[in-house]
Amino acid sequence: MSAKVTRADVARYAGVSSAVVSYVINDGPRPVAQATAARVRDAIAVLGYRPNTTAQALRRGSSRLLGHVVPDLGNPLWAEFALAVEAVAAARGYDVLLASSEGGADDEHRRVETLSARGVDAVIVTSVLARPDLVSRGSGVPLVLLNTFFEVPGFPSLGVDAFGGAQEATEHLLGHGYGTVGLVIGGETGELREQGWRAGGGTGPIARGEFSRHGGYEAGKRMFGSSDRPRAVFVASDMQAVGVLRALYELGLDVPGDVAVVSFDGTVETEFTNPQLTTVRQPVRAMADAAVARALGEDSSERRVLPAELVLRASCGCG
Amino acid sequence: MSAKVTRADVARYAGVSSAVVSYVINDGPRPVAQATAARVRDAIAVLGYRPNTTAQALRRGSSRLLGHVVPDLGNPLWAEFALAVEAVAAARGYDVLLASSEGGADDEHRRVETLSARGVDAVIVTSVLARPDLVSRGSGVPLVLLNTFFEVPGFPSLGVDAFGGAQEATEHLLGHGYGTVGLVIGGETGELREQGWRAGGGTGPIARGEFSRHGGYEAGKRMFGSSDRPRAVFVASDMQAVGVLRALYELGLDVPGDVAVVSFDGTVETEFTNPQLTTVRQPVRAMADAAVARALGEDSSERRVLPAELVLRASCGCG
Repeated sequence: MSAKVTRADVARYAGVSSAVVSYVINDGPRPVAQATAARVRDAIAVLGYRPNTTAQALRRGSSRLLGHVVPDLGNPLWAEFALAVEAVAAARGYDVLLASSEGGADDEHRRVETLSARGVDAVIVTSVLARPDLVSRGSGVPLVLLNTFFEVPGFPSLGVDAFGGAQEATEHLLGHGYGTVGLVIGGETGELREQGWRAGGGTGPIARGEFSRHGGYEAGKRMFGSSDRPRAVFVASDMQAVGVLRALYELGLDVPGDVAVVSFDGTVETEFTNPQLTTVRQPVRAMADAAVARALGEDSSERRVLPAELVLRASCGCG
Repeated sequence: MSAKVTRADVARYAGVSSAVVSYVINDGPRPVAQATAARVRDAIAVLGYRPNTTAQALRRGSSRLLGHVVPDLGNPLWAEFALAVEAVAAARGYDVLLASSEGGADDEHRRVETLSARGVDAVIVTSVLARPDLVSRGSGVPLVLLNTFFEVPGFPSLGVDAFGGAQEATEHLLGHGYGTVGLVIGGETGELREQGWRAGGGTGPIARGEFSRHGGYEAGKRMFGSSDRPRAVFVASDMQAVGVLRALYELGLDVPGDVAVVSFDGTVETEFTNPQLTTVRQPVRAMADAAVARALGEDSSERRVLPAELVLRASCGCG
């Protein structure tokens, strides 16, 4: 088997020193002439040499691994969570393997199993499920739920203060003097962002749609294509807000001149819309840090709720 | 050890039938009362039961696994590649583990090693490197390079026809009667998209920047803040085009009235800019399909180049 091929064998085959083989494998610390490097790589391929990953791991300080299950990576929010978890894990000497799910319970369950079977030390599940408790308790590795709005009995979980964020956004829009603040949100009635909007003084109308750009576009066309449109709107996700801006553009309505908009999530995309979106920013990095700390047993909290931050830009009428 | 705990043990502990335990674990096919399901999950947790993944894999038709190394997931293009690889792999009964890299050679190398060490059958590397040949040949599993513009000796690779796509985009803009077509692109001079732009009749100016929204914004401010701005521009990536649109908005220039824009990549974000972006669409799904086929040995091609498709929308002056 290839496991018995040593670096010395590769060196002999390629006609170079063992150190040069190491430089080629590790891309340093010393440079190797291109033709020599090619010869070494050929020798590695021919002999089926496989570097000793345990030794490599020791040199790197870790062979430790976390799993992370994320929903649809086409939503920049989940991509930002994936990157943040990776960054904070790397700072602790951990690599991360990602598995993207379609967001359903079966699918999340299966991804957790796949990662567990590959020997990860813990799995972080960034979930959009209303019932993430369907994730198996039997997976045999610690699980941490990231981005749940509610406590999930039996699992450590983390979420943003969605109620407070939505309330502050709505109060801010009313503070501008706009008489009515509508709501664009997902299909589920009464969730925390809707409660926060209502607590902040939101009275309607409400347009529901998928949590996607297209869902926001369709909801925006319905809400603002009608004659009794609201003067301002709180949109419960950035993706939907991008769709609402597109709908307003098509309807010839100016933002914020005709309609003021505040979104929720605070992904990088909101800095590059025209105009830039005022948004309730989720503390993605802090949430990722708390999730990794919990997954590695650095603390034992069962539930943490982190505050959101209202970022003021042009779409609400500020700046 | 927990491996010796059986489903029958769980059933006995929870006071239910073995079938009910299965329904809870698999979330079906029959519904289970919430209180009963909670009891089963408690039993699983207490006993440390771990479902037999081999049996599960057989039931699902596979326990096979591919690895996929992707650069910055904050770019929707890479997220789309990740989703597409997962979808085409799933259609063949394969799961995918993702590892996101910072895009450097060391980092890609390490991710390949991490995935290889976890027993994946092959690794697909979606790379932005000019020199992806630095990926180790010694990882012991088949590698396929996805999204390389050039042939990479020693590795099977796939890419889009960047030259042809850029040429067609530029010719299309000139066909509208715009006298000059500028270029916004990355820092590396003379790559295929630049060659294609030139072959299509592009004469300048050129503004270079990072392949990011911010890089496009900065390049756009430079190119269009000057008095001798071009009437049209080909932007070599969607991310940069989003930044260019933001710069034009700030400068008070209308698209396409003052400046016509065509981008390259064709991610979903281009459908939701204002106006919508005309773009050279990469055949992401077909590329992912070809990469997975190659990784699984369904064909033995060393190099495949897939055609791009010019998608006409409002930003170039069409529609």
